[in-house]
Amino acid sequence: MVPDTQSTEKILAKKYLEECKEFIDQSISRFLPEKDGYPKSIHESMHYSLFAGGKRLRPSLLIASAEAVGGSRSDVLPFAVAVEFLHTYTLIHDDLPALDNDSLRRGKPTNHKVFGEAIAILAGDALLTQAFVLMTNPHLMEAVSHQNILRASQEIAKAMGSTGVIGGQVVDLESEGKKIDASTLEYIHIYKTGFFFKACVRVGAILSGASHSQVGALSRYGAHIGLAFQIIDDILDIVGDKKELGKDIGSDIDKEKATYPAMFGLEDSKKKAESLVDEALECLEEFDERADPLREIARFFVQRTF
Amino acid sequence: MVPDTQSTEKILAKKYLEECKEFIDQSISRFLPEKDGYPKSIHESMHYSLFAGGKRLRPSLLIASAEAVGGSRSDVLPFAVAVEFLHTYTLIHDDLPALDNDSLRRGKPTNHKVFGEAIAILAGDALLTQAFVLMTNPHLMEAVSHQNILRASQEIAKAMGSTGVIGGQVVDLESEGKKIDASTLEYIHIYKTGFFFKACVRVGAILSGASHSQVGALSRYGAHIGLAFQIIDDILDIVGDKKELGKDIGSDIDKEKATYPAMFGLEDSKKKAESLVDEALECLEEFDERADPLREIARFFVQRTF
Repeated sequence: MVPDTQSTEKILAKKYLEECKEFIDQSISRFLPEKDGYPKSIHESMHYSLFAGGKRLRPSLLIASAEAVGGSRSDVLPFAVAVEFLHTYTLIHDDLPALDNDSLRRGKPTNHKVFGEAIAILAGDALLTQAFVLMTNPHLMEAVSHQNILRASQEIAKAMGSTGVIGGQVVDLESEGKKIDASTLEYIHIYKTGFFFKACVRVGAILSGASHSQVGALSRYGAHIGLAFQIIDDILDIVGDKKELGKDIGSDIDKEKATYPAMFGLEDSKKKAESLVDEALECLEEFDERADPLREIARFFVQRTF
Repeated sequence: MVPDTQSTEKILAKKYLEECKEFIDQSISRFLPEKDGYPKSIHESMHYSLFAGGKRLRPSLLIASAEAVGGSRSDVLPFAVAVEFLHTYTLIHDDLPALDNDSLRRGKPTNHKVFGEAIAILAGDALLTQAFVLMTNPHLMEAVSHQNILRASQEIAKAMGSTGVIGGQVVDLESEGKKIDASTLEYIHIYKTGFFFKACVRVGAILSGASHSQVGALSRYGAHIGLAFQIIDDILDIVGDKKELGKDIGSDIDKEKATYPAMFGLEDSKKKAESLVDEALECLEEFDERADPLREIARFFVQRTF
């Protein structure tokens, strides 16, 4: 029996993502102080959240983008690991009582529930810092020029700052329980999620010596799938499977968070995500088959159930 | 009337530090998103703590170190501002209720008292991130090689991490109310304070193209004055003037924190700080008069009253 196209893509994307996840998982520890290194509590805390079931989507996108322009995954590995450190730091801080006050993440107690608030705050700080320890070490990336290493570090730092991911988180927090308009909701999604995805895709390409126009096309691709990813996230919070997602369903509603489905309805939100993915795919038209993993990941993003 | 040598040094060091402070203060804003930039709360919060009366000691040391090896302060300015961002982030996070729970800093309400815990956590994160936005931007430092920019960024990132400043903070927190030995106390002081001072001094030199042996000598200088600075900090917490210090006296005792005077007595602690400064001065023997500001700052560190 031949599976339909959609399922084939889902399988291919899952396979690629699993392969990248394995590659990342094997490498994380060697870029971190040891789990029982002194002082023990903070290193345990950092390891705990890094190995709490992350899907490694951001590193996988970074790798797929590098490979799409002829780069190699081992050359971009330190950045791939660094973006996972950054993602993990944002999760630890977002879950804190003063922010989203979440006690469960991917089916496990959140960092502050296990290690206390002080260590959770410092573990987040330490992961953010450790990301830059990796990104500024040219000895880990001998095939990459110093100029491109700096350019890539700069891209990531800007994307994560107060006019990027952190800015999105601030507006998200300040919008809880309030009636916000569609442009504010889009701001939150683009800044909190989209900027980071876009930066991962750009950086994979920059480190691999991509041309200006390639970086531009991948940048648009990244922005589109970033927003699509967040819309699907909102949808899964309503219709998803608690077990598959590893978190409670309906938490956005409980927190009176503005979401795409709440504002536009489930059906139109799904359509919006699908059309964003179509636009993302159009951005890849000039790329050859080495960009297939990027294409499959984009399609997978709207089909995912976790 | 001729002032005695000690007073002359105090005046010279103060003048140099004031000059550097002015240079830094004038530059901070241009390296930051605007105070009323969207989202407003986080940018106000970042500006609030950056302009809450900091002495700019770390940037001044970085500049003095650059000038000691023939470098220029304008070439190292982005790093000088970045280390002040980093210092400010550590203060905002240290003051949080889950950590030191301080409500007053330099005579003003702490960041979370004004902006709430969530924004304070995110403002700290944003300052830490913004520091790397500056440090990885070669266009701000055209006289410095890409290699040296990366080397300097790497030094700072390592010093601030879980096996540096954050590690010191963790051990400090976990030692509150406990009886600790002298080596643990030294660990806290060296890691929490000394590493950062040392990194500032090293980075000023590295960015200015200093030789390996110069960086080594300055590194030892930085480690010595860093520890001396923290010992004097402990002493001032007991005998200092609340108004001059801008914070409550006796807070270490209230928090049952281990300190040098508590462990060795006031007199021996003062002697230890003085002998560290003497050792620091010895490290500068091979340097000419361009290292005088470093010499004066070292002597000033044990004479300061704020």
